[in-house]
Amino acid sequence: MSNGNIDVSQLMAPPVTDVTQLEKTMDTIKSRMEVMIMKTQAEVCHALEEQDGQKKFLVEKWSRAEKQNDVIIGDAVKGIGQGGGGVTCVMQDSKVFEKAGVNVSVVSGPLPEGAAQQMRSRICSRGKKLEEGKLMFFAAGISSVIHPRNPHVPTVHFNYRYFEVEEASGKKHWWFGGGTDLTPYILDREDAVHFHKEQKAACDKHNPDYYKRFKAWCDEYFYIKHRGECRGVGGLFFDDLDTPSQDKLFDFASSCAAAIVPSYIPIVKKHKDDKYTDADRNWQLLRRGRYAEFNLIYDRGTKFGLMTPNARIESILMSLPLYAKWEYGHVPEEGSKEAELMAVLKKPVEWL
Amino acid sequence: MSNGNIDVSQLMAPPVTDVTQLEKTMDTIKSRMEVMIMKTQAEVCHALEEQDGQKKFLVEKWSRAEKQNDVIIGDAVKGIGQGGGGVTCVMQDSKVFEKAGVNVSVVSGPLPEGAAQQMRSRICSRGKKLEEGKLMFFAAGISSVIHPRNPHVPTVHFNYRYFEVEEASGKKHWWFGGGTDLTPYILDREDAVHFHKEQKAACDKHNPDYYKRFKAWCDEYFYIKHRGECRGVGGLFFDDLDTPSQDKLFDFASSCAAAIVPSYIPIVKKHKDDKYTDADRNWQLLRRGRYAEFNLIYDRGTKFGLMTPNARIESILMSLPLYAKWEYGHVPEEGSKEAELMAVLKKPVEWL
Repeated sequence: MSNGNIDVSQLMAPPVTDVTQLEKTMDTIKSRMEVMIMKTQAEVCHALEEQDGQKKFLVEKWSRAEKQNDVIIGDAVKGIGQGGGGVTCVMQDSKVFEKAGVNVSVVSGPLPEGAAQQMRSRICSRGKKLEEGKLMFFAAGISSVIHPRNPHVPTVHFNYRYFEVEEASGKKHWWFGGGTDLTPYILDREDAVHFHKEQKAACDKHNPDYYKRFKAWCDEYFYIKHRGECRGVGGLFFDDLDTPSQDKLFDFASSCAAAIVPSYIPIVKKHKDDKYTDADRNWQLLRRGRYAEFNLIYDRGTKFGLMTPNARIESILMSLPLYAKWEYGHVPEEGSKEAELMAVLKKPVEWL
Repeated sequence: MSNGNIDVSQLMAPPVTDVTQLEKTMDTIKSRMEVMIMKTQAEVCHALEEQDGQKKFLVEKWSRAEKQNDVIIGDAVKGIGQGGGGVTCVMQDSKVFEKAGVNVSVVSGPLPEGAAQQMRSRICSRGKKLEEGKLMFFAAGISSVIHPRNPHVPTVHFNYRYFEVEEASGKKHWWFGGGTDLTPYILDREDAVHFHKEQKAACDKHNPDYYKRFKAWCDEYFYIKHRGECRGVGGLFFDDLDTPSQDKLFDFASSCAAAIVPSYIPIVKKHKDDKYTDADRNWQLLRRGRYAEFNLIYDRGTKFGLMTPNARIESILMSLPLYAKWEYGHVPEEGSKEAELMAVLKKPVEWL
């Protein structure tokens, strides 16, 4: 089934915006972004399904009600309301993947007050100003966390988003954000090097400074402050980018998104059948506890989601692992592989 | 071994403050509070050990370094520094209790900026004012979460604290806070009634309005906003209490603390050998995920702890369950006992 420019049959579900409408507006950044993230979702999900070999992704299309108290949840394809919607793909308790979620959302509405405060201070630190008073937002993004079963396979996260905020005067602010980071349980230094190499290649197509800058930002962002440790071996993180241009940033985000499969899938393939012990599994669960801590306490996207009225909580919190563990006073043995990982999380490494 | 008025042999560890010093100052609220929470800790731990019958509590005495970057963690009894310290008692992976933590802390120092902001707005809403500029704080409190293994035994939490904030001018603000709440996995209405009855009895000794007021506050406080559900069947919650007097509020907090054993232990005894299924255990783990969400996102005490420099993270996050689970899109079957619990969590019940 082909719909002119957009081949819906290649996607996990029809886009959030009506396809005819999308095709008519493919000169706008909003539509280009929506199509890019839908395509990325399908590409990543198909690559993961191929590695898993057992289950397919469950696909749920949802809409966000604006100014309604109804909680919207369900597995039926629903009409898209005023507040936008999304497509959530989840594979749970399968052979290779314990929990894998790839979520696309295209949402808009009045900006929640808590989010406005955070954005004001960030926009201000860029030397710009966000007006007081009512603000409207638009966001199109893809967000994913993949938790594999085997402790030798790292968890990966990625997220690419285009954001617009409009003041009452009509003045628009826009920016891109995103990134990806790898969270190993048992460190394989070659995996970290491979992952960073692929991400650097995506950066280098656009700006020779991007990798260095966004790698450092990633180490800073994915930091569990109260534990004094990074959540993984990093990758890229960027936010609030509005230069050099929408077109160039869209191309950059697209390159990053296209680099997810080559960055991560070879690592899955390499380790998915590795032998592991109960102690390895226990360590993985403890580290997943730390993952949950980061996402619930610090993650910008999660916080924004939880602040947004009628947000689809299941789609936001699908980033949380299937199982997590908190053991009081657990300290890895000196010289163990757990201690080796911790040394890297305490002091970020330049992998390239 | 008797030490004059304070029988240290009855406590889990020597108090944070030197015993001779404490005995000399037993006319002060700080010392009375410290002794009360140390005694409560011992009473609760012994009652839990008796129910468990397998393990004893691990006892760790710790101190908080003020203005140092060292992370203090370990199992040795350590000297108490300027920033205060505490005694953490934990029983983990035992017969009846999967994770039980009872923590006493007596800490002081400059008030962290994030905490100051929160307190300013709360003090302001009481019609008072907290000066801008440097503030010093003192806090003495007991905090506990008990996660049993059997899904028929509810989790309980309790916390009683005395708080002082001193402005640069020397002006002092003080208040009491605390409460307890019960989180069942499989609802036994009689348990909820028993728990509330005991807590009401503790309230009624002091003020006929307390139970109603603090029961309602508990339903409001232990509410997981993004899920639209309470975390359990409630109990009592109070904060920022500074009337009618320090003495009366101390007596009230003491009565509440003394009511923990009679409120909770009979419920443990009743259900600890109940049969349960894998499905019950799965449901318990899912609910423990929600417990972790509440504690990491909303809980005032946890937030305060995470903001405090050199706080002992292990003692703060010992409230988290040993295991938790997040299943995407889990919805209890209509008419099931899971659905029965959810109905109560969605709409708080008047148990008495």
